[in-house]
Amino acid sequence: MRTPPTTPATSPLLAATLAAIGPADAAATAAAEARQLTLTKPAGSLGQLETLGNRLAGIFGTCPPPVPEPALLCVFAGDHGVWAQGVSPWPQAVTAQMVANVAAGGASVNVLARHAGADVLVYDVGLAGPRPDAPGVRHHRVASGTADLSLGPAMTAEQCGAALAVGLRAAADAAAAGYRCLLAGEVGIGNTTAAAALVSVFTGRPAAEVTGAGAGAVGAALAHKKAVVARAIEVNAATPADPLAALAAVGGLEHAAIVGYLLGAARHRLPVILDGVIVCSAALVAVALAPDVRDYLIAGHDGVEPGIRAALARLHLDPVLALDLRLGEGSGALTALPVVQSAAKILREMATFGDAGVSGG
Amino acid sequence: MRTPPTTPATSPLLAATLAAIGPADAAATAAAEARQLTLTKPAGSLGQLETLGNRLAGIFGTCPPPVPEPALLCVFAGDHGVWAQGVSPWPQAVTAQMVANVAAGGASVNVLARHAGADVLVYDVGLAGPRPDAPGVRHHRVASGTADLSLGPAMTAEQCGAALAVGLRAAADAAAAGYRCLLAGEVGIGNTTAAAALVSVFTGRPAAEVTGAGAGAVGAALAHKKAVVARAIEVNAATPADPLAALAAVGGLEHAAIVGYLLGAARHRLPVILDGVIVCSAALVAVALAPDVRDYLIAGHDGVEPGIRAALARLHLDPVLALDLRLGEGSGALTALPVVQSAAKILREMATFGDAGVSGG
Repeated sequence: MRTPPTTPATSPLLAATLAAIGPADAAATAAAEARQLTLTKPAGSLGQLETLGNRLAGIFGTCPPPVPEPALLCVFAGDHGVWAQGVSPWPQAVTAQMVANVAAGGASVNVLARHAGADVLVYDVGLAGPRPDAPGVRHHRVASGTADLSLGPAMTAEQCGAALAVGLRAAADAAAAGYRCLLAGEVGIGNTTAAAALVSVFTGRPAAEVTGAGAGAVGAALAHKKAVVARAIEVNAATPADPLAALAAVGGLEHAAIVGYLLGAARHRLPVILDGVIVCSAALVAVALAPDVRDYLIAGHDGVEPGIRAALARLHLDPVLALDLRLGEGSGALTALPVVQSAAKILREMATFGDAGVSGG
Repeated sequence: MRTPPTTPATSPLLAATLAAIGPADAAATAAAEARQLTLTKPAGSLGQLETLGNRLAGIFGTCPPPVPEPALLCVFAGDHGVWAQGVSPWPQAVTAQMVANVAAGGASVNVLARHAGADVLVYDVGLAGPRPDAPGVRHHRVASGTADLSLGPAMTAEQCGAALAVGLRAAADAAAAGYRCLLAGEVGIGNTTAAAALVSVFTGRPAAEVTGAGAGAVGAALAHKKAVVARAIEVNAATPADPLAALAAVGGLEHAAIVGYLLGAARHRLPVILDGVIVCSAALVAVALAPDVRDYLIAGHDGVEPGIRAALARLHLDPVLALDLRLGEGSGALTALPVVQSAAKILREMATFGDAGVSGG
């Protein structure tokens, strides 16, 4: 068992972000709850559309809340040293190929983003191999992939901090550009292995319980993957007591960037829609660093990966969708986006009992 | 126990519709299943978005399927004699008030339809009281509310057939106007009582199991409602062996119109998105009349009403959403619409492995 990495020095940007994060506005949430009762429907009859709308009021600090648009999906891409352990049936080159596919507009997230009226940016925070020759990729590579987390720390403290800062700046740039809804996505062959390790560490559940098939590890390959995840946690002595050290030890560069992105969203008081198990694992780290971040997180979907449900249970978040998705990239977040936006419009546009002359208000 | 009504004479329009309904195109569905495997994602990783897209290919008979747009929600409104039994806490006048609210654009379905880019039409097929003085309401009243189904048949065979014909014509008109996706909704104080009776009859499950709170019957009121539903089935000797007789006996005018609307959608080979328990109960009747109708039905959501799950299980349909909705009107169908449309776009717009130069296709 090796010594875990020392805690990354908290950068001034991270320190300022953590200091600026506060809870959602409880008064605005309460005002939204009261407003729901005046709208022409039985109390509570729009279920989760009501609770989502009320949360949006709290996030934006006003009732009714603005419609969360325009929306931006940031896709963070990285490669993983643990790929060498045979945790994925896909060649590692697929990460860069999918980054190029996203940049060219042909991936699932491009289709779903056009449908929902969202923009997409793709960040190279840690691809292996040559810099992708694809226009539109944002080049913020911190390292050419991580080290093998089953043998020792995936990242140095400095690498982890640098990747986290990429995400912090991505959120700050998005806020400055006027986006009012952020979505988190990722590409990275092998990255469900790191996500499972983070989920196990931060929920306390056994690796075998929270490790799933990812993009295709089934049967004996899944059993092997579970063993790799358990070994990684043990080798690194990863513990939730030191969130940044655990992230550096068993996470990935894109996981670290997403942690920064979620922190940045909360700091700018913007809702951020989570996607699959990688993003959910990063959410656990972000909330461990700043518990108020939870107020800004919207769970896009309950996918096939068991780590999603474990993470959302820990975060006390109800998923918007349950469509058995297991693609990642941000596909579940984007599919949920129109539903999230409709929740705000219900509060903004529905007639009240008084306005409409309907009895019972 | 009274004699159940005789089977309504099958009208020429209904007979022609039933004769023209055929299954979805299995070859187009198979082509879509094959196409999914060529798109840049792990096989099956978009879960229900894939199965929805494949079903749309079968419905439209072509792969990739067209995007199901423009979309039209038809809201059918009626009143219920059984209201006098105290099955709802709301005044009966709310039905007409909500019809006016929908016509004026202030109801939940108007908000959700604007968001999703759908149109809304509202039909008076059976309001009690004066004709609503609201521009935009389509006047097709068959009777001023039903008779009390807990004492005898809710409708005569002729009334039931006439209401059904309103729905048949609504679907035909929508198809002629170029709509490529239909959504079904309703307004009617007391109509979850009739829906529960239909669900019980057509699924064989006890009334107590499939009767829910509707718009607010809780505690002793819910127990009373369950007893009323059980009595209605017994008094009318309603049986699934004669679907039209059962519909006339324990249904409602809007339920009958929706049966016609669903049959019409299938006849014109259009997808139709179901809403809550009223629409789901009508779907059971439509499928009993013409089993191939099932191929054209998309379950919008799994709501709070227990009859929804019972009906969808019988129909072997997976709901798109599970947001704990219990409003009806078409709100769940409209919330699901963007998701359904995205399923078609995945098949139409995603790059293939070959196009994108991604390994693994």
